[in-house]
Amino acid sequence: MTPDLPVDVVELIGSVAGVFTTLAFLPQVLQIWRTHSTRDVSLGMYLIFCSGVTLWLVYGLLIGSVPVVVANAVTLALASTILGMKLAWRKGEQAAAEPVV
Amino acid sequence: MTPDLPVDVVELIGSVAGVFTTLAFLPQVLQIWRTHSTRDVSLGMYLIFCSGVTLWLVYGLLIGSVPVVVANAVTLALASTILGMKLAWRKGEQAAAEPVV
Repeated sequence: MTPDLPVDVVELIGSVAGVFTTLAFLPQVLQIWRTHSTRDVSLGMYLIFCSGVTLWLVYGLLIGSVPVVVANAVTLALASTILGMKLAWRKGEQAAAEPVV
Repeated sequence: MTPDLPVDVVELIGSVAGVFTTLAFLPQVLQIWRTHSTRDVSLGMYLIFCSGVTLWLVYGLLIGSVPVVVANAVTLALASTILGMKLAWRKGEQAAAEPVV
């Protein structure tokens, strides 16, 4: 089913995919940094995602794959920054959400 | 540097990593569905991320890798759901943000 594309074109598609799915988290980091607001960002998502990316990093080290290690190290840095900001500003958001009696 | 782990243990780590980074988006989908609020979720992130995951899907088809295709098909379904809800409810949020004159 797969068309016969030269290997380097196929690898280029994989590399561009890796760059996109890695750097995609940068706009979210910048938005949260600008607004200091994380209410709509799911804590559960980033706890699970950071665990998964950490496992990908371990996997990349075990198979000795530099692209897997580099891509997941950058993704982990960005995703854990989002997780850190979410945890840091969460109390403020909970307090703001509670009705003042 | 890498310890000698049996191949199936290494592959297990990769599989669990894939399941985590795929299903991580489910809590974000459920939160947005429950709150109908996407203001803090970055539109830029999900535009770039969905493009990247689509490229991973094409890459997986080209190299004939079922795990890459399945993981990225599920991730694309979840991430594009978030993107769709963000686009759908964005106007409402912008209108709410504008001061009433």
